[in-house]
Amino acid sequence: MRYPAKVKLVDVGPRDGLQNEKQPVPAEVKIQLVHMLQDAGLKEIEVTSFVSPKWVPQMADATEVMAGIQRKPGVRYSVLVPNMKGLEAAFPSKPDEVVVFGAASEAFSQRNINCSIAESIERFAPVVEAARAKGIYVRGAISTAVGCPYQGEVKPESVELVARLMKEIGVQHCGVADTIGVGTPRKVQAAMEAALKHYALDDISGHFHDTYGQALPNTLACLELGVWQYDASVAGLGGCPYAKGATGNVATEDVVYMLHGMGIDTGIDLDKLIDAGKYVSDFLGRKPVSRAAQAILTRRAG
Amino acid sequence: MRYPAKVKLVDVGPRDGLQNEKQPVPAEVKIQLVHMLQDAGLKEIEVTSFVSPKWVPQMADATEVMAGIQRKPGVRYSVLVPNMKGLEAAFPSKPDEVVVFGAASEAFSQRNINCSIAESIERFAPVVEAARAKGIYVRGAISTAVGCPYQGEVKPESVELVARLMKEIGVQHCGVADTIGVGTPRKVQAAMEAALKHYALDDISGHFHDTYGQALPNTLACLELGVWQYDASVAGLGGCPYAKGATGNVATEDVVYMLHGMGIDTGIDLDKLIDAGKYVSDFLGRKPVSRAAQAILTRRAG
Repeated sequence: MRYPAKVKLVDVGPRDGLQNEKQPVPAEVKIQLVHMLQDAGLKEIEVTSFVSPKWVPQMADATEVMAGIQRKPGVRYSVLVPNMKGLEAAFPSKPDEVVVFGAASEAFSQRNINCSIAESIERFAPVVEAARAKGIYVRGAISTAVGCPYQGEVKPESVELVARLMKEIGVQHCGVADTIGVGTPRKVQAAMEAALKHYALDDISGHFHDTYGQALPNTLACLELGVWQYDASVAGLGGCPYAKGATGNVATEDVVYMLHGMGIDTGIDLDKLIDAGKYVSDFLGRKPVSRAAQAILTRRAG
Repeated sequence: MRYPAKVKLVDVGPRDGLQNEKQPVPAEVKIQLVHMLQDAGLKEIEVTSFVSPKWVPQMADATEVMAGIQRKPGVRYSVLVPNMKGLEAAFPSKPDEVVVFGAASEAFSQRNINCSIAESIERFAPVVEAARAKGIYVRGAISTAVGCPYQGEVKPESVELVARLMKEIGVQHCGVADTIGVGTPRKVQAAMEAALKHYALDDISGHFHDTYGQALPNTLACLELGVWQYDASVAGLGGCPYAKGATGNVATEDVVYMLHGMGIDTGIDLDKLIDAGKYVSDFLGRKPVSRAAQAILTRRAG
């Protein structure tokens, strides 16, 4: 069969997930969550974001969280940095990887960061250079890669443009993100193929939201292209800022259930992963937004 | 591309869905739901079940519901019949199609109907013959086709056996059902390929539950085999009797969203379908168990 034999999952729950919680989650809960994720076998965790606490109070404890983690050998700890100030704030925490962002939608770029796609990437050039000078790996995320809340459809050509610009400024890894979860299999394949024109298969990942229930078929469609790295969020942490109450990030548990069922190795212990999701969901006072987790927790209670 | 250009969806919500509601739903609500589904463009609806009201009080109004439907030309109305008594009770309602069941799991067959797989199919032989003598199309459903709550894994060989036995007694259509939703893409492909040894592609359908969130990737995997007929349940009606509180049938809305996004024609108006799901969900006092419906309803409210 054409599917990859192994898949690497990056859990973005502590950052992309908890950033969307109204009430900031205490640092010790985030640290415990990271510990449970690494114990479950995750090999990369997007821990936090070095952003202005004025804009994102949920991530104001970035330095504290990074300092509190007992790092496990072989695990990568990544952080998001929106600009040079964020990168400099991140340096003392010694992240293995920093994540920078660019939108594939011109309308999204204008509305969110008040500049064109090309300008936004250009602004990242010194950040990428400074990070790489310190030996930090740079991941670029292409947001709104298949659809945009403002302009609707996003063409693969736009994804290709962002991928090319990112490549030009030295971004080492390209993540293709369906930020609002509107993508379906053929569309995400087209977006992925556009990114693959500038990045090798080993330097590409998919980031799918489950807002319309499409994250797993989209993952399956990209597995067929050979893409073997995906972001996911334990317990489906993180809602959708463009549709309040709707589902956001795909749950790591659901992805793992599918991959293991297909005989694809992730190195993850699904039961421990479910424990991690239950831990943070209990703290948040709700059920994990993962169908596999709910079914398995029901069976456990059974 | 290898996907079918058209897909036919059978909405099983009024039967498979509402049968799982604790409180029987009034006949007029079921009738209104069927009307809304046919208005939304569904070409086949599994309306009810002619079973003993002692065992399934939710379907005690089978005759009343069938009589109340204003049939729309081009739409097929199917009913489930567990035995000859059920078939005879169904005759006056003039269904276009009857559905009979056989399990692919020996343990499930023994526990649920107290006989072997082979015996259970044999008992259906006179039912199939009597139905066909009246010109009624007979669909056979192979339940527990990839997993069983009692024996666990189910081998494709067992699916092939049931398909062969069904074919032998004259069953015209073979539905491959992942009754407990544990299947993943390769497993459902294997089950489907086993059924395809005895049924032509045009006489095969998939019936997937979303208990572990796998119904859409499983559908995508079967689309790749050319399978173009699927069951689904509006608003995800119907829970999972083997995991209380867990998700059951895949929501028709989620399937339609995926198919339309892939450029596959279903003949269904997604907005009207969402109205149908909202109608019955409002009656039941809960939200539709469909991510696409929730996202679209949120956007509508927004």
